[in-house]
Amino acid sequence: MRAQVFRLSMAHPGDLSELEALFTKGALQPQDVVAVIGKTEGNGGVNDFTRGYFTQSLMALLSRWLGEPADKLAARIPCVLSGGTEGVLSPHYVVFARSTVSAPSPGSSLAIGTAMSPPLGAEHVGRAAHIKSVADAVKAAIAQARIENPRDIHFVQVKCPCITSARAEAALAQGKSVVTSDPNRSMALARAAGAFGVALALGEVAEARLDETALLRDFSVKSDRASISSGVEVECNEVIVLGNSRHWSGELRIAHRPMADALDIGGVVQALRDLSIVAAPQVTPADRSRVRAVFVKCEPDRRGRIAGHRHTMLDDTDINAQRHIRGALGGLVASVIGDGRIFVSGGAEHQGPDGGGLIALIASQTAGDA
Amino acid sequence: MRAQVFRLSMAHPGDLSELEALFTKGALQPQDVVAVIGKTEGNGGVNDFTRGYFTQSLMALLSRWLGEPADKLAARIPCVLSGGTEGVLSPHYVVFARSTVSAPSPGSSLAIGTAMSPPLGAEHVGRAAHIKSVADAVKAAIAQARIENPRDIHFVQVKCPCITSARAEAALAQGKSVVTSDPNRSMALARAAGAFGVALALGEVAEARLDETALLRDFSVKSDRASISSGVEVECNEVIVLGNSRHWSGELRIAHRPMADALDIGGVVQALRDLSIVAAPQVTPADRSRVRAVFVKCEPDRRGRIAGHRHTMLDDTDINAQRHIRGALGGLVASVIGDGRIFVSGGAEHQGPDGGGLIALIASQTAGDA
Amino acid sequence: MRAQVFRLSMAHPGDLSELEALFTKGALQPQDVVAVIGKTEGNGGVNDFTRGYFTQSLMALLSRWLGEPADKLAARIPCVLSGGTEGVLSPHYVVFARSTVSAPSPGSSLAIGTAMSPPLGAEHVGRAAHIKSVADAVKAAIAQARIENPRDIHFVQVKCPCITSARAEAALAQGKSVVTSDPNRSMALARAAGAFGVALALGEVAEARLDETALLRDFSVKSDRASISSGVEVECNEVIVLGNSRHWSGELRIAHRPMADALDIGGVVQALRDLSIVAAPQVTPADRSRVRAVFVKCEPDRRGRIAGHRHTMLDDTDINAQRHIRGALGGLVASVIGDGRIFVSGGAEHQGPDGGGLIALIASQTAGDA
Amino acid sequence: MRAQVFRLSMAHPGDLSELEALFTKGALQPQDVVAVIGKTEGNGGVNDFTRGYFTQSLMALLSRWLGEPADKLAARIPCVLSGGTEGVLSPHYVVFARSTVSAPSPGSSLAIGTAMSPPLGAEHVGRAAHIKSVADAVKAAIAQARIENPRDIHFVQVKCPCITSARAEAALAQGKSVVTSDPNRSMALARAAGAFGVALALGEVAEARLDETALLRDFSVKSDRASISSGVEVECNEVIVLGNSRHWSGELRIAHRPMADALDIGGVVQALRDLSIVAAPQVTPADRSRVRAVFVKCEPDRRGRIAGHRHTMLDDTDINAQRHIRGALGGLVASVIGDGRIFVSGGAEHQGPDGGGLIALIASQTAGDA
Repeated sequence: MRAQVFRLSMAHPGDLSELEALFTKGALQPQDVVAVIGKTEGNGGVNDFTRGYFTQSLMALLSRWLGEPADKLAARIPCVLSGGTEGVLSPHYVVFARSTVSAPSPGSSLAIGTAMSPPLGAEHVGRAAHIKSVADAVKAAIAQARIENPRDIHFVQVKCPCITSARAEAALAQGKSVVTSDPNRSMALARAAGAFGVALALGEVAEARLDETALLRDFSVKSDRASISSGVEVECNEVIVLGNSRHWSGELRIAHRPMADALDIGGVVQALRDLSIVAAPQVTPADRSRVRAVFVKCEPDRRGRIAGHRHTMLDDTDINAQRHIRGALGGLVASVIGDGRIFVSGGAEHQGPDGGGLIALIASQTAGDA
Repeated sequence: MRAQVFRLSMAHPGDLSELEALFTKGALQPQDVVAVIGKTEGNGGVNDFTRGYFTQSLMALLSRWLGEPADKLAARIPCVLSGGTEGVLSPHYVVFARSTVSAPSPGSSLAIGTAMSPPLGAEHVGRAAHIKSVADAVKAAIAQARIENPRDIHFVQVKCPCITSARAEAALAQGKSVVTSDPNRSMALARAAGAFGVALALGEVAEARLDETALLRDFSVKSDRASISSGVEVECNEVIVLGNSRHWSGELRIAHRPMADALDIGGVVQALRDLSIVAAPQVTPADRSRVRAVFVKCEPDRRGRIAGHRHTMLDDTDINAQRHIRGALGGLVASVIGDGRIFVSGGAEHQGPDGGGLIALIASQTAGDA
Repeated sequence: MRAQVFRLSMAHPGDLSELEALFTKGALQPQDVVAVIGKTEGNGGVNDFTRGYFTQSLMALLSRWLGEPADKLAARIPCVLSGGTEGVLSPHYVVFARSTVSAPSPGSSLAIGTAMSPPLGAEHVGRAAHIKSVADAVKAAIAQARIENPRDIHFVQVKCPCITSARAEAALAQGKSVVTSDPNRSMALARAAGAFGVALALGEVAEARLDETALLRDFSVKSDRASISSGVEVECNEVIVLGNSRHWSGELRIAHRPMADALDIGGVVQALRDLSIVAAPQVTPADRSRVRAVFVKCEPDRRGRIAGHRHTMLDDTDINAQRHIRGALGGLVASVIGDGRIFVSGGAEHQGPDGGGLIALIASQTAGDA
Repeated sequence: MRAQVFRLSMAHPGDLSELEALFTKGALQPQDVVAVIGKTEGNGGVNDFTRGYFTQSLMALLSRWLGEPADKLAARIPCVLSGGTEGVLSPHYVVFARSTVSAPSPGSSLAIGTAMSPPLGAEHVGRAAHIKSVADAVKAAIAQARIENPRDIHFVQVKCPCITSARAEAALAQGKSVVTSDPNRSMALARAAGAFGVALALGEVAEARLDETALLRDFSVKSDRASISSGVEVECNEVIVLGNSRHWSGELRIAHRPMADALDIGGVVQALRDLSIVAAPQVTPADRSRVRAVFVKCEPDRRGRIAGHRHTMLDDTDINAQRHIRGALGGLVASVIGDGRIFVSGGAEHQGPDGGGLIALIASQTAGDA
């Protein structure tokens, strides 16, 4: 098995022209595509429709090339998008592909596994059933990726459904209860449940502590490798597991580091060093071409302070706190790497240290042009 | 002469308690205060009243301690505020004081000069008369600071008036023309005129090129040391000149560097190095205590790209582009220094390289607790 | 006793020039001022500092005229501000004054009473102690206003403290619990508690139903005369009671009507008719000059629909739902009256019918120029 | 000929289920669809992708039913969307269909004509060539609609391209000039040019006055029947002409009225009366069912005042002025009609009286359930 990773730019959320160009010139076989993670230029909130627009456009394109109905494709290829390209961030998407190769390379290489949970009702979002649903899907993805040691797993991306006003109304009309009818809060609870699910599957935290009552309450419960998004456009939990495995070949490898707080440039530099890339202070152009994808999760510190000084993100009625923190972390990470194509996703509840987050990087052993 | 610099936090835009505490314990003499530069938690736009609120509160405090009417104080002590503490930025203000000392220290030390132009009518904002008005005030401030070589000037902060809808209406009613009746555009033109005025006073650019027709048009015309703000709360140009001079004593020194683009972490690290501070990748706690003030100007690249990749700041109808760029640069600079108390001001038209900006830093030779 | 009501415009949140002009020309005695209700051009959220700025400016002005310290004045004169002049709304403030007159007029006239509760700790905000604190203050204000029949009370304005991130941190550090550490949610809970307090004092709802567990849960519990604001700038509950009383004289009277939903133009027209003013469809210029103050409370319907059709206010991550609803109701009411100086305040939880709100109007029997 | 008008709700910008249901049950023949005008829940600005998402979804649906490629359909069926459902507005779309009928009805009935101009380069947007291009397309649509007297034309909807940062860069790279590189300003200029084009085609204004130098300058030049939108998702001018014509049959008729300012409830009531519908103050449920579509254009008064009082829409850095005015007018018109499905579009430069706008209504002679 061999993983391919393509980082592509989009001119708008309906623009898949760079992916189509890869198909056209034969650089990528459409049937090899197994997952997509992207950053669209919406607001990243409940009413961010850039994610649905991109997904519809992607599935329509794949449908044309594969002759398979778009809804079938959407049900098997996870497409996890985070809205919001604040500040220096650039709209882009990372396409993951898996192909069969005869000659394995020595050592371990990037491995990919995916899974989709069954649909999750609005009444289960942000509750125990949600945690269990995510954990089961993550385990299935690990098995598919053939990663034997959980320590070789470096990044688990999950996209969870949330509760819109409409979904809350529908559930209530059926006599079901929802954990909250506030859409923004439902997104936070969904992300928390997703993180608990990953921690459960990876054995990062004792199962007894992964209780629904700890969601958004006990922030010492956390996964350092979970990246959870939540949005209106999905109804089940979509899972992408990334790690290194000796069953895979090729020049790509992945690494990750927790970030202690929103100023933790050290974590970024460390993660690069894990892949033998030096930032002094910025990655050189040659090394920059080795970087194939960067994923960051982060969070505005709940306690209102960063490194001892008051921040104002949580008290801003004009700009959502997640938009603030994505912009700040985007500025930090993009300046170190010298490239704005960074997947920075807010809402890092229970994902990395409280008030911080995590970074994962995929790089090639050799320079390239992707 | 000796300069003192105090960086103080505020709990809200009307909170001057840290300054009052300095007065109370005698650490600072109220009559020594010559200027204030601060960052308040507004939106930084036309309707940002946190600046006026802070100024009113500051002048009321000084009035109580000095027994001088608040309006007289406002007319002689420049108080330059930039609204917007996006992302990791922390609301704070830097108080500059000047005292007479008998024993001069060897070498040169931080020097401060201030000046206020006469009131500038709405009909002059963003035009030739505005450029001239700023240049005259800057020259007066340089003379006051006793900085002999223009190369020893490292930072010139100017606050210019802008044109609100109300001011535009009033001017038009009097038969005068205004350069624009769009408030946001008037702020941009005012900043541009201010930068031209600084470049003229410092001799950075040949006078012939500093023509009003080049404002917001020829971005190769620029000052690497001008930092211009614009707001509804001032009616004249307020000027603060900072540099190093052998006529001043004390441990403080200032340095500056241009920033080539919004990812230019190298410029930040260089400016620190100019003051013998190493960031690897973050400044150590000991050196961090030497940093007394950080000033950054920056700009969303007009051409829509940063380091070759599309950004979306200029096309965002929900969040003003200046809020975006402040958040990104704040993330970059705060992570290198390890402190969110960074003065980051957007609107860097003609201030530093096109699409970039500049950074200036004040640091002590020895560690301290300010 | 005789009530005076002045509706004044402001050029910005620090502009009290119209009030000072009334003092200067003797149209209003500074010592007669008992309360102010105003609409400032902030965002109406947690970080809306236009309210604090206006209050500071108002108290400084009164202090100059009365020779009494500003903090003493702030402790006895309620100044209730709602931020947000969305759409056609115009920034303005209504000054209430009370003077002694010898000749009572026949019938009843506008009566005013005020009260301030003791300071309310962050740990009590949005809980039973909050309800009780408001009810006690409302009763004190009714007694002061000498309104004998609760049915003659038409509008009770209360401003409650809320929980900012900083206050939440401080309370937690002292080992106290807060009902929520989400600032926006704390504002909603504070408003709910205030409404329960008014309903308790006015006897609108049986005391047993006014339990803290019903706050933001049982929306059939409501007051049709409560208008509650919440903000960072107050630490106690400030109360203003308005009604009609035979102990007062003068040409002013007040009326109110509930509004069934956000489209209930009928409620507006009815309230006008209660004061003998016809809107067909807009109030005539002559009658418009009789209208001295308009107060509206309203709410984005929690269930996501208005008159059967989906609205999007609660799902918008870019614009706070309260800003949306104020803009819509402002458009409705201002078009009927022909004047944008309408106090429209969002956050009508338990204030008027669920999904709707209420309107109160003060008008003179004769046309005037206020 | 007979016009059909269906007003349909959407759950999100990709939801065309109500239209598909009409096709399925045979209430509407897919091949009869000639135009769509809708209101999606985006921000209505440059980065509003809800319009592109809806259009893509609509054309995909039509393509499935008609067996014609989506891009061919998009090139002949105008789909004019205005983003922004502020306040009480409800996301919906109006589908216009044209069918052949043998028995003409007496009098005149609603007539529809459409046209698409050739693609308009970024270098022409907001200039003389833009005016001409729109005028030619409007004339073609009138001819198609067979409306003989220009006075029987009541509403001309045009959607124009604008200049994004990317398009500006591309044009400049080709050595072409653009009228502005500020995307928001380009949208305003495009709307102005569109209004001039309509006024030219309808003979509302002398051709000599419809000069490009008057765009956004001389606001006495205006069309009372033009409604112009602008967006990133179109590259040519799309035109829909609506009027009454004796060549058409059926129960539908259209009327329009100018609105003098943003409070002009009288204009709304008048337009309803033109179609024999009374609002006292709200339209009755029976008459409400006769209303099939409502179109409003409006504008935040440039001079900063409405009916003599200051508004703050143009000085708000947090919320775009067009979002403000749509919310206010939406509140006004929806409350009179009792229905939030109102097409309210901001950006009424030269469309209706300066500082006001216009309203057009389609109603049936008899009550119905659409």
